[in-house]
Amino acid sequence: MNENMQKYLEKAEVLIEALPYIQRFNRKIIVVKYGGSAMVDDELKKQVIQDVTLLKLVGFKPIIVHGGGKEISRWVGKVGMEPQFINGLRVTDDETMEVAEMVLGKVNKSLVQLVQQLGVRAIGISGKDGGLLKVDKKYSDGKDIGFVGDVKEVDAQILEDLLEKDFLPIICPVGMDDDYNTYNINADDAACAIARAMKAEKLAFLTDIEGVYKDPEDPATLISELRVDEAQKLMDEGYIGGGMLPKLQNCIDAIEHGVSRVHILDGRIAHCLLLEIFTNKGIGTAIINGEENRYYHE
Amino acid sequence: MNENMQKYLEKAEVLIEALPYIQRFNRKIIVVKYGGSAMVDDELKKQVIQDVTLLKLVGFKPIIVHGGGKEISRWVGKVGMEPQFINGLRVTDDETMEVAEMVLGKVNKSLVQLVQQLGVRAIGISGKDGGLLKVDKKYSDGKDIGFVGDVKEVDAQILEDLLEKDFLPIICPVGMDDDYNTYNINADDAACAIARAMKAEKLAFLTDIEGVYKDPEDPATLISELRVDEAQKLMDEGYIGGGMLPKLQNCIDAIEHGVSRVHILDGRIAHCLLLEIFTNKGIGTAIINGEENRYYHE
Amino acid sequence: MNENMQKYLEKAEVLIEALPYIQRFNRKIIVVKYGGSAMVDDELKKQVIQDVTLLKLVGFKPIIVHGGGKEISRWVGKVGMEPQFINGLRVTDDETMEVAEMVLGKVNKSLVQLVQQLGVRAIGISGKDGGLLKVDKKYSDGKDIGFVGDVKEVDAQILEDLLEKDFLPIICPVGMDDDYNTYNINADDAACAIARAMKAEKLAFLTDIEGVYKDPEDPATLISELRVDEAQKLMDEGYIGGGMLPKLQNCIDAIEHGVSRVHILDGRIAHCLLLEIFTNKGIGTAIINGEENRYYHE
Amino acid sequence: MNENMQKYLEKAEVLIEALPYIQRFNRKIIVVKYGGSAMVDDELKKQVIQDVTLLKLVGFKPIIVHGGGKEISRWVGKVGMEPQFINGLRVTDDETMEVAEMVLGKVNKSLVQLVQQLGVRAIGISGKDGGLLKVDKKYSDGKDIGFVGDVKEVDAQILEDLLEKDFLPIICPVGMDDDYNTYNINADDAACAIARAMKAEKLAFLTDIEGVYKDPEDPATLISELRVDEAQKLMDEGYIGGGMLPKLQNCIDAIEHGVSRVHILDGRIAHCLLLEIFTNKGIGTAIINGEENRYYHE
Amino acid sequence: MNENMQKYLEKAEVLIEALPYIQRFNRKIIVVKYGGSAMVDDELKKQVIQDVTLLKLVGFKPIIVHGGGKEISRWVGKVGMEPQFINGLRVTDDETMEVAEMVLGKVNKSLVQLVQQLGVRAIGISGKDGGLLKVDKKYSDGKDIGFVGDVKEVDAQILEDLLEKDFLPIICPVGMDDDYNTYNINADDAACAIARAMKAEKLAFLTDIEGVYKDPEDPATLISELRVDEAQKLMDEGYIGGGMLPKLQNCIDAIEHGVSRVHILDGRIAHCLLLEIFTNKGIGTAIINGEENRYYHE
Amino acid sequence: MNENMQKYLEKAEVLIEALPYIQRFNRKIIVVKYGGSAMVDDELKKQVIQDVTLLKLVGFKPIIVHGGGKEISRWVGKVGMEPQFINGLRVTDDETMEVAEMVLGKVNKSLVQLVQQLGVRAIGISGKDGGLLKVDKKYSDGKDIGFVGDVKEVDAQILEDLLEKDFLPIICPVGMDDDYNTYNINADDAACAIARAMKAEKLAFLTDIEGVYKDPEDPATLISELRVDEAQKLMDEGYIGGGMLPKLQNCIDAIEHGVSRVHILDGRIAHCLLLEIFTNKGIGTAIINGEENRYYHE
Repeated sequence: MNENMQKYLEKAEVLIEALPYIQRFNRKIIVVKYGGSAMVDDELKKQVIQDVTLLKLVGFKPIIVHGGGKEISRWVGKVGMEPQFINGLRVTDDETMEVAEMVLGKVNKSLVQLVQQLGVRAIGISGKDGGLLKVDKKYSDGKDIGFVGDVKEVDAQILEDLLEKDFLPIICPVGMDDDYNTYNINADDAACAIARAMKAEKLAFLTDIEGVYKDPEDPATLISELRVDEAQKLMDEGYIGGGMLPKLQNCIDAIEHGVSRVHILDGRIAHCLLLEIFTNKGIGTAIINGEENRYYHE
Repeated sequence: MNENMQKYLEKAEVLIEALPYIQRFNRKIIVVKYGGSAMVDDELKKQVIQDVTLLKLVGFKPIIVHGGGKEISRWVGKVGMEPQFINGLRVTDDETMEVAEMVLGKVNKSLVQLVQQLGVRAIGISGKDGGLLKVDKKYSDGKDIGFVGDVKEVDAQILEDLLEKDFLPIICPVGMDDDYNTYNINADDAACAIARAMKAEKLAFLTDIEGVYKDPEDPATLISELRVDEAQKLMDEGYIGGGMLPKLQNCIDAIEHGVSRVHILDGRIAHCLLLEIFTNKGIGTAIINGEENRYYHE
Repeated sequence: MNENMQKYLEKAEVLIEALPYIQRFNRKIIVVKYGGSAMVDDELKKQVIQDVTLLKLVGFKPIIVHGGGKEISRWVGKVGMEPQFINGLRVTDDETMEVAEMVLGKVNKSLVQLVQQLGVRAIGISGKDGGLLKVDKKYSDGKDIGFVGDVKEVDAQILEDLLEKDFLPIICPVGMDDDYNTYNINADDAACAIARAMKAEKLAFLTDIEGVYKDPEDPATLISELRVDEAQKLMDEGYIGGGMLPKLQNCIDAIEHGVSRVHILDGRIAHCLLLEIFTNKGIGTAIINGEENRYYHE
Repeated sequence: MNENMQKYLEKAEVLIEALPYIQRFNRKIIVVKYGGSAMVDDELKKQVIQDVTLLKLVGFKPIIVHGGGKEISRWVGKVGMEPQFINGLRVTDDETMEVAEMVLGKVNKSLVQLVQQLGVRAIGISGKDGGLLKVDKKYSDGKDIGFVGDVKEVDAQILEDLLEKDFLPIICPVGMDDDYNTYNINADDAACAIARAMKAEKLAFLTDIEGVYKDPEDPATLISELRVDEAQKLMDEGYIGGGMLPKLQNCIDAIEHGVSRVHILDGRIAHCLLLEIFTNKGIGTAIINGEENRYYHE
Repeated sequence: MNENMQKYLEKAEVLIEALPYIQRFNRKIIVVKYGGSAMVDDELKKQVIQDVTLLKLVGFKPIIVHGGGKEISRWVGKVGMEPQFINGLRVTDDETMEVAEMVLGKVNKSLVQLVQQLGVRAIGISGKDGGLLKVDKKYSDGKDIGFVGDVKEVDAQILEDLLEKDFLPIICPVGMDDDYNTYNINADDAACAIARAMKAEKLAFLTDIEGVYKDPEDPATLISELRVDEAQKLMDEGYIGGGMLPKLQNCIDAIEHGVSRVHILDGRIAHCLLLEIFTNKGIGTAIINGEENRYYHE
Repeated sequence: MNENMQKYLEKAEVLIEALPYIQRFNRKIIVVKYGGSAMVDDELKKQVIQDVTLLKLVGFKPIIVHGGGKEISRWVGKVGMEPQFINGLRVTDDETMEVAEMVLGKVNKSLVQLVQQLGVRAIGISGKDGGLLKVDKKYSDGKDIGFVGDVKEVDAQILEDLLEKDFLPIICPVGMDDDYNTYNINADDAACAIARAMKAEKLAFLTDIEGVYKDPEDPATLISELRVDEAQKLMDEGYIGGGMLPKLQNCIDAIEHGVSRVHILDGRIAHCLLLEIFTNKGIGTAIINGEENRYYHE
């Protein structure tokens, strides 16, 4: 029994360690962009939802924004549609939009299901509900790529109402333009716009990479914390490429509009969200505004 | 101008005529089961949504429950699935349920879109959100027909929260069982269960028939108002058949659990909802509890 | 029946046409100065009250300010008092004030009665209740004309309380000076002061004229809309005379203190209020602040 | 200065003596029927209003119900009307009712004026406002005496709303029947009905007599406290006569419907209300439910 | 790093394990009787306060009731008082009560200090504040033992107010009798009375023993869970003796008045509260109402 | 009886005289620094508490801040401690602080007891509760005098919460520094800091002197009212000395931070608080901001 008791005590210590973090983020809003591998692997999916639900239960106000992952592509194929591309970007015509909205809706409700199962009230909405996301049509180098939109306005009232009523909101990135047409929105962009509008304390991107590297070839160059000016400099100097470029741009954008800390987390690591928030172990890269937000000092 | 003025005065009179009806139903809940032709014809669709939105604006608290119409069948075919039938009922296997939920989600958001366009805050949810609809698996003569559920419990909290926040809730009839599996629910049943749980003043079914006939062969036998006991008698005596039988059973069930008046409306008539509520012209058949709820006296 | 159905459908269309207007003025305050012929003719009286009650029921927040019409003169005669005049203005001595307050109180309660009869909660108050209207003694060319006051301060708290409790407030234009003496106030002035204090969306004067004419001799010169600067110019250039002069001054005053639109309506036209608000037919003359408030374009 | 100081100390002691009474009746409703000499004598009038205002300020919730005193008769004469009588009761025809309502309205506002002057928010209403008093036509031995009504229902919502908003409500006893005709109500009856509906702690009648006597000829037989059963017995045994009979019936009625203590006070004594409530000197007669409400023990 | 990561993952797992417990007790009241060794040892003291504070932060509503431990005796000696005993019980005369109240007050504020230091709002009160604890004088076999009281009434309003305002209330067991004299109360009794009055979900006694034994000589007979009827039987059969007897009586009393589960915890074990609530390791003995509250099945 | 009646009427007049004062200070905060003789003499103590309780009941929001008087010294001696002095100031070492906190706690609860006895809800807290008083260590001419603190921050939230819940807060002047050590605070300073933080209408110091004199040797030079600039001038010119100097500095400080009127009252006069507030007899000296706050004109 002594050995068991030792184990139990260690558990209690872990809970006690969490105390200052629970304290610090009490009633703060945290927007979680949920995507990538963590959406495909069922075990990871369950862990992400457990993490977010725990955050809700201990007093945070989390909001999930999710994408559709590879599920959209799968269904586009399933209904026998021919994908079209312009500049390597998928053209979202009427029918593709229809399928995308259906798939995103399905994913949305499957997340609601998991949260409800853990005993927390969830509500799944799209950017159409309550006019949450208003978009402008987006062009790729001036070319028409169909119903792809840029968020031009967030009407946060619906989120404030739902948080007040103690729901965990789960949002899929679909919005409407001024003529009430339906548009697909990049989930990273949607999460960033919502974090800004809600003056979130944190914005966390669950991704399939470990974080930002100074040298992508060298894992040892992973950067734990990055001030916005440092991030900007890295971008200016060409260290950042590929999909990380717009993501980092979103991070900077969020920080500059009042979000305190943006995290690029490796969604392939179990419970990466909890680890980031409740331990002094930084996972991935945090974008911060200034030195006062720096946590991890060597 | 005199002629114009005459026309304007007539308009004012119509508004004034509406006064006692607005007064009578102020802050009352009305559940509208929206389905059938009114979902297919774009003009009728717009009119139904205009009607419900007007009800919202003049002080009612409408809730829409919708089905998927023929859209589900269309998509089931589109993805190349083979329909199976037992006792003439479609078997809802895993994949069918997946498609059904996607299609219902799409229809749901298209209604949200129309309401938002009219300047009223709408929110589209399914019976999964906030655990609204809890179901038991349903069998057809003891045969397994897959993920088809009977509502066993309504957790109305989410609807009360949304009405309090002044949303127009739009609900698709999908629910979960005790193990959090997804089930399809008959939209009439869902509407009836929600009307009961919300202690609605009215429940209106938009259908593709004119109402209840004593003799279905003879249009002149359309019944304007029917007390529950009269309805029961008609059923017992075999006058009612086909799809009207379960619908009428739902009506009786709703009345017996506190709904004041249930309407079977002909959704093919433009603005049938407004006509029923704001004029002394009864559209279709009203099921009532007793003589004191009788409106139309010859 | 087809013909009837056609008629019913037209009614529904009228209601649907009202939708954007209901939407636009939802929870907005509209102050109605009720006087003139519309107070004398019982049919018109009923119609005005129906109009205001409808506005209340569909979500507006109307406030009625009324005068005493010819009823005061009738009772002054009835009790055998000799009217006195200075500069053609009636001198309001102690006794006249007493009779005026009694008559205004009676008219006030008769309006309460009509509104209550239509099923809406009304409350009739004077400017004494809750200290609503504070006045300074008014002089006519330096001559003492008795207990006639200018509104110097509006304590709007009582109106905010009553609107919050969902009453339709009906106000008679009597106030008190700093020594708590009773004064009569011109009903137009009282309505204007209240509209300003409540930051009303609209202020409507029910009068016995069609509106503002460029040439009073020529009915064809009736002006539908008038920007404040245009109104000022008309006044400066001497086009406006008689009782219209102070009324127009009140309109300008209200607009300059935040009321969006002031209407001079012909109270002799049945349902002139509804026609003005719910149709695109302008009745009488609207005073507006700038081009963005112009409705009626030829 | 010593002498002055002594005087000041005595004042402080009086305030301190009031402490337990203030404590006991904190937030309790007290309905004051105001009538008789206290309405005619200006000094007494001011004192009554001071008393009620003080009760309001120290935390009670007083409601005033007033009559019209001799003022109605005076004005009926003034406008040259011929009084008619049936069974010695004045017949209230249309015109008499009109004058009565006007006079009661005037008295009502004069009380508002006095309370406002003391810095407390007053609102004067009649039983028409908010549908407060609903009446049935009253007959005298089967004879029609015109617009005289018995209270059949009190809609207390308006009073609850006004008390919640911290107003001192002042009510004149006019009501409407089911057809919204105006009726005069006996002020004692109105006060009693309102006290019952509001579940008042106290109901106080300001009268022109000292209280209830065992032997009206002998002032020494004034009764300080009377249990309802004792009062009933006195009535049954014929000790009580004249105007005291219906008044005592009202007292018993109020007690039996939940009012804790009803007072018949001599309104001719300055500050009789304060004396009754804040000192251990009983003024007039108190009707109580049982021994536990007895205050004054010899 | 792999090894570290492993350790971090284990931490995350511990947090996730807590999820259902946090969920189950969300917004539930838990009364903690804090005494014994856990009050003397500074490290244990800190751990108890950390535990309670964590419970507060994750959504519970804890209330601490504490004794004075040996501190009272120490100060009684320090001021040179001679202790008196009757039946082996300390007599609490005026002076002893004075010292006891002072010492309890000091302990109370030292707990406030520790909670505040952890960033949670604490408020330290005694049973005098807001009239929380009303007592009757207690006698020991009919002998006067001074100012020692039995709780006869709990006025829980103050605790409801403080919980609503999100304070962690810390209570010392001092109360007043009907004459407002000060009395000492046994802390176990006070905790039990408060748990009953607040309809607490849990009541936990921090003690210096491991729990209830069937055979106190044999540690192996420690009982994990005990239904009230089993507890009663043990007492009836003489298995329970010494200080455990009144404690167990308190447990039964609490359960019978609606507390769901009462815990006798070994306060000498670090974080015994967290271990009991957040792990499936039962510490000490739980008194339960029936089988449905049994947690630990072998 | 006539004579008695006369006496009663005079009592009523005293209550009526209080009306404007009750009106003026309705819902205003008044901070009372309670100390000196009024704490030692039991009769005076009872009178002060009666006064404050009456203020509470008639609608003020009083807050009591008290010192420990000579009681601390008495207990320091009682436990056999040797007092140490630096610059004539008592050095507050660990043990002295412990005794001081205990004694202040005892005094605190004895005041709670008195207020509760008068039927008003009291709560006794120290500056530690809810983190009310944050202090910096204070030095005397650079010398360490132990745990004596200057208020550096007031977290008024706890007081706002308690007032909202209708408690009468009673505060003892103990606070914590940034490291959560306990410090004694001068009660005058604490009262002044709290009055500033709560934007009190009044701050009253109960002292053992009559007020401020121009010439302390000549009682006739007692000053009734003093503008801050006059007070400053008196201080600059050396008229003020001894304990009055810091007290007057506190008065000026309070006035300059928004308190309307600060009173230096002679606590040896019975009911000095009531006399000051409810009569036109000024007791002691009032410090005011400008002429508009002057009450007493010769």
